[in-house]
Amino acid sequence: MIYKGRPSAGFEPDNFLQPNASMNSYALRYQHYKNIVEQRLQRCIAKSEPRTLYHPVKYVLSGGGKRIRPLLVILSCEAVGGTLRYAVNAAVAIEILHNFTLVHDDIMDNASSRRGRATVHTRWDTNIAILVGDELVALAYRELLKTNSPHIARVADIFTEGVVEVCEGQMYDKDFETRNNVSLNDYMLMIGKKTGKMVSVASEMGAVIGGGTASEARALKLYGTHVGRAFQIQDDLLDVIADEKEFGKAIGGDIVEGKKTFLLIEAYSRARGSDKKLLRTVITRGGTSRKHIGAVRDIYERCGVIDLARQSIAKNIAHANAQLSRLRKSPAREMLFWFSHMLLNRNS
Amino acid sequence: MIYKGRPSAGFEPDNFLQPNASMNSYALRYQHYKNIVEQRLQRCIAKSEPRTLYHPVKYVLSGGGKRIRPLLVILSCEAVGGTLRYAVNAAVAIEILHNFTLVHDDIMDNASSRRGRATVHTRWDTNIAILVGDELVALAYRELLKTNSPHIARVADIFTEGVVEVCEGQMYDKDFETRNNVSLNDYMLMIGKKTGKMVSVASEMGAVIGGGTASEARALKLYGTHVGRAFQIQDDLLDVIADEKEFGKAIGGDIVEGKKTFLLIEAYSRARGSDKKLLRTVITRGGTSRKHIGAVRDIYERCGVIDLARQSIAKNIAHANAQLSRLRKSPAREMLFWFSHMLLNRNS
Repeated sequence: MIYKGRPSAGFEPDNFLQPNASMNSYALRYQHYKNIVEQRLQRCIAKSEPRTLYHPVKYVLSGGGKRIRPLLVILSCEAVGGTLRYAVNAAVAIEILHNFTLVHDDIMDNASSRRGRATVHTRWDTNIAILVGDELVALAYRELLKTNSPHIARVADIFTEGVVEVCEGQMYDKDFETRNNVSLNDYMLMIGKKTGKMVSVASEMGAVIGGGTASEARALKLYGTHVGRAFQIQDDLLDVIADEKEFGKAIGGDIVEGKKTFLLIEAYSRARGSDKKLLRTVITRGGTSRKHIGAVRDIYERCGVIDLARQSIAKNIAHANAQLSRLRKSPAREMLFWFSHMLLNRNS
Repeated sequence: MIYKGRPSAGFEPDNFLQPNASMNSYALRYQHYKNIVEQRLQRCIAKSEPRTLYHPVKYVLSGGGKRIRPLLVILSCEAVGGTLRYAVNAAVAIEILHNFTLVHDDIMDNASSRRGRATVHTRWDTNIAILVGDELVALAYRELLKTNSPHIARVADIFTEGVVEVCEGQMYDKDFETRNNVSLNDYMLMIGKKTGKMVSVASEMGAVIGGGTASEARALKLYGTHVGRAFQIQDDLLDVIADEKEFGKAIGGDIVEGKKTFLLIEAYSRARGSDKKLLRTVITRGGTSRKHIGAVRDIYERCGVIDLARQSIAKNIAHANAQLSRLRKSPAREMLFWFSHMLLNRNS
């Protein structure tokens, strides 16, 4: 059992992880933090009028998810000597903000389902989905501003730069849909803003709330940047190589939609002859039919971009871990090592 | 001339208004503050990538407007002894936030033009308008958080409650479109959130940034609440009685759209016989044709709701002014009196 004492009111004594905690205890602790975040997400929407707004807000926030951004806020705070108590509001805030991006992105992407449930604009309508997203931003700031920290202004700055970049990243992503000349650099810039930034915001905010030094905050921010990058390339990879049962959805979706992923961009620059011709069709036509998924995946294998993606993920995780090595030893730091390892080996 | 000294870099010596400033000098000072806000609005979007996002953002922020919320932030700050220098970021922030609500509301209302220009979702598309609105929220917080004040956390709280209530107000407004039983209380609740809240947020933030006492901040917040209410009822009234040339758009738009305004709700509860029948048609059919505008306006006159609206506006302005009387005398306080007087007599 990993608890030193009985957890009360969602909190437990600081540093409840033993120095030599096992993989299993990390998973338990992750689950414990997830539970706290879930409780808090429910609590922050206790207010219920107008119901037409708060009902879909509640629907969104109870939709589950990995809650990895909150975990990063909490662990980063602990890794510099802070405690859960101070990090929990920012942890909940960034999860709410993440859900805002999902609701608005789903409108823009015409996505009808997410995590096995109808999206807000499908179940209600686009106007409500716009408003629900807006309200989520406000609720995220409300939660963030409850943070009891002398550094709250800086935390709010970091959070706000995250919102700015998420919007920029989403705009690049939409732009790329109709552009046929997206380079790997373009892709990395886009994905760094759209996905990566929120991960580095999480770890940086945690470090600042925990009272970390400038170099600790910088190390944890960079940890988040590399983890975020690895996470996205892994996402691109899983779309092609995952086991459908574990993945929870049909594979090859990115190929069908013609999404300019790490794999498609790199494969197109390496392929020759009929391979290049097929990829060009996928790019210029903005996608292809499901029957071509196998052929495209074979091209990916043949020109080595599956291995390349694996190497890039491993390299980013190594960079992330190198940043952790700058921090003093602590159970939270060890759990951050575990966390990046877990991302590297995830199946969904 | 009202300046004590030469304004430099957009700022001028504190309290440049003479104690016995004339109406004309208030108008000049209003213009001066507007100019500063316009400059700042341009500066905050100097960043330009991706252009597909920042071009429409710039378009929105250069669209003009009365800029009354920034004026209230600045004057409220000055009225408690603060200076423009400290209020200007919050002033710009609330104007950006106001523009966010306009962009998203225009999508929801299917509005094709605003202030004589195409709306964002018309000139570009709905997806871009959603993202532009989101980005404006982020830019508003970025600007707000530049505020140099020991009370920045409280200022951010006030601002955030404004965003929450604006979303709630917009949701009520959308709900009311399809409800036939909207009472005056419902209407006042909705409009207080959708329009009024941002006005009281402006005056309250100004007071807090200026270092006002709790009772000064409360008085200025309430001043904003009453002014906001008067402003909205005046809006409803102008739609019916304004001179079209000065108003800048065709009158009777609310009647055509069947908007549940102060006038329609009150008239419906007072009218009898064929008058009530016509109003019921406007309400249940969600509007009427332009040819009925005259008849509806005649009913409004007959059942006295035009006078009632005028009385309500005057009463709210009186309440607003009573709050000002709680503050110590200052040129800024006098200008706030002028400001409410000006609202009472506006034609557009």
